Amino acid sequence: MATILKGAEVVEALNAEIIKEAEALRAEGIEPTLAILRVGERGDDISYEKGVTKRAEKVNVAIRNVILPVDVSQDDLVDAIENLNADSKVHGVLMFRPLPGHLDEDYVRNKLDPAKDIDGITDASTVGVFTGVNSGFAPCTPSACMEILEHFDVSIKGKNAVVVGRSLVVGKPAAMMLLERQATVTIAHSKTTDLPSVVRAADIVIACVGRAEMITADYLRTGQVVIDVGINVTEEGALVGDVDFSAAEGIVDFITPVPGGVGTVTTSVNLKHVVSAARNQNK
Amino acid sequence: MATILKGAEVVEALNAEIIKEAEALRAEGIEPTLAILRVGERGDDISYEKGVTKRAEKVNVAIRNVILPVDVSQDDLVDAIENLNADSKVHGVLMFRPLPGHLDEDYVRNKLDPAKDIDGITDASTVGVFTGVNSGFAPCTPSACMEILEHFDVSIKGKNAVVVGRSLVVGKPAAMMLLERQATVTIAHSKTTDLPSVVRAADIVIACVGRAEMITADYLRTGQVVIDVGINVTEEGALVGDVDFSAAEGIVDFITPVPGGVGTVTTSVNLKHVVSAARNQNK
Repeated sequence: MATILKGAEVVEALNAEIIKEAEALRAEGIEPTLAILRVGERGDDISYEKGVTKRAEKVNVAIRNVILPVDVSQDDLVDAIENLNADSKVHGVLMFRPLPGHLDEDYVRNKLDPAKDIDGITDASTVGVFTGVNSGFAPCTPSACMEILEHFDVSIKGKNAVVVGRSLVVGKPAAMMLLERQATVTIAHSKTTDLPSVVRAADIVIACVGRAEMITADYLRTGQVVIDVGINVTEEGALVGDVDFSAAEGIVDFITPVPGGVGTVTTSVNLKHVVSAARNQNK
Repeated sequence: MATILKGAEVVEALNAEIIKEAEALRAEGIEPTLAILRVGERGDDISYEKGVTKRAEKVNVAIRNVILPVDVSQDDLVDAIENLNADSKVHGVLMFRPLPGHLDEDYVRNKLDPAKDIDGITDASTVGVFTGVNSGFAPCTPSACMEILEHFDVSIKGKNAVVVGRSLVVGKPAAMMLLERQATVTIAHSKTTDLPSVVRAADIVIACVGRAEMITADYLRTGQVVIDVGINVTEEGALVGDVDFSAAEGIVDFITPVPGGVGTVTTSVNLKHVVSAARNQNK
């Protein structure tokens, strides 16, 4: 039976790290602060906001809420971003997306100061991830995958890693981050020929396709480490990953659960980035 | 015996395409123009400059030479770039690198207008390659690899491609471009475990490590298409690729030669980008 890589354990370690760093910052008179910028009242956004706020309280990171009406003009939104950029008391900004359709998201997101872009949404952060130059921050989900691998001492160097999925927020940056850690990285996707054997060949599997339980027993073998990024709701209303957990559990060596895996770590990564940003801005 | 994928054939086809587009532009009163910006008198730069100039003449693209002294100040170099950005008669800019050590290359290269960045050196172009959004231009060498695959009708979709090497100018963008064309892409490198079998598993091999003839018979199998990006000088003064050509020739199905392969196509890609840029700027 596989060892379950529980997100809670990683969160605990990350939180301890963040608390320590937040304390050090406070001792210097700096209150690490995350601004959450929300446009409108989308349920998903509000629910993630609640989660971050609760976690932030735990780790002594202050939250500043900026809530704009769903019909905010682009100029007003950009003004709000520029105010946050200019505010030395705000160290990181989390802006929920997608933005309402009347706003040019590509234009707006790049108005954020990359130094405060703790969720890796600006082009400057993207360049940092692609080039492996540690400027800016990587998006939180692939960062959470790396935190999990690191926390559980999974050796990456020289290993074969496969990333199933090639989105800009998870798949591609995850591939670059694994490459940076010296893995041999394969990016697979819906057009891959014989996906089961491609996945089976890998030592480390990052599943980020967004299709409920599509990675079944025939994709897997003993010895593998499986990081399941997927969060899918079944017809019965259950929350499941991209991996068929019950099948995988009996085959692979290590696997993250859904829920309770990557998702829960993401929030702490956001907050870790905030204290790092606060430190960078107060060197 | 492998079929040799001769660069000259691709160049001929590309040149015909460029000539046609250059003619169409001239008919509209637009003279497609490439500015070559050189700092100092490096032999490599001067030799590439000569090659581009000769090829440009052939395809009716005008060249504007901007030559600055090796001790040029950063301000003067940036001024030169900004003048080219502002000049509506210049459509593309090729700036030789590396720049002399007293210049901040990262700062300087990003002063170039991405619309004129026909060699893909700005961060904006890098983001375009990584995201697969066709803004800006990809660097010329990986673009040349794609032109060769396309010219010889190599099917890419669903194929396993391995890129050996992960540089920012060749390996990483080549991987992204293959991914964009629906290949399953593996990025391998010096830390890869059992590199021969990783390479052997691929249908398409892009060799861009920069080590003379390191890819030998045991990395190869019948059925493969091999694109050799390497240009290495042996102790005997011979020009060889990253692939042991004489061994590969008897094993794989298709292979590019060195010299006369990718390198020669690169120059025409530069010029193709110039006419595309001229078209984009005059829509």
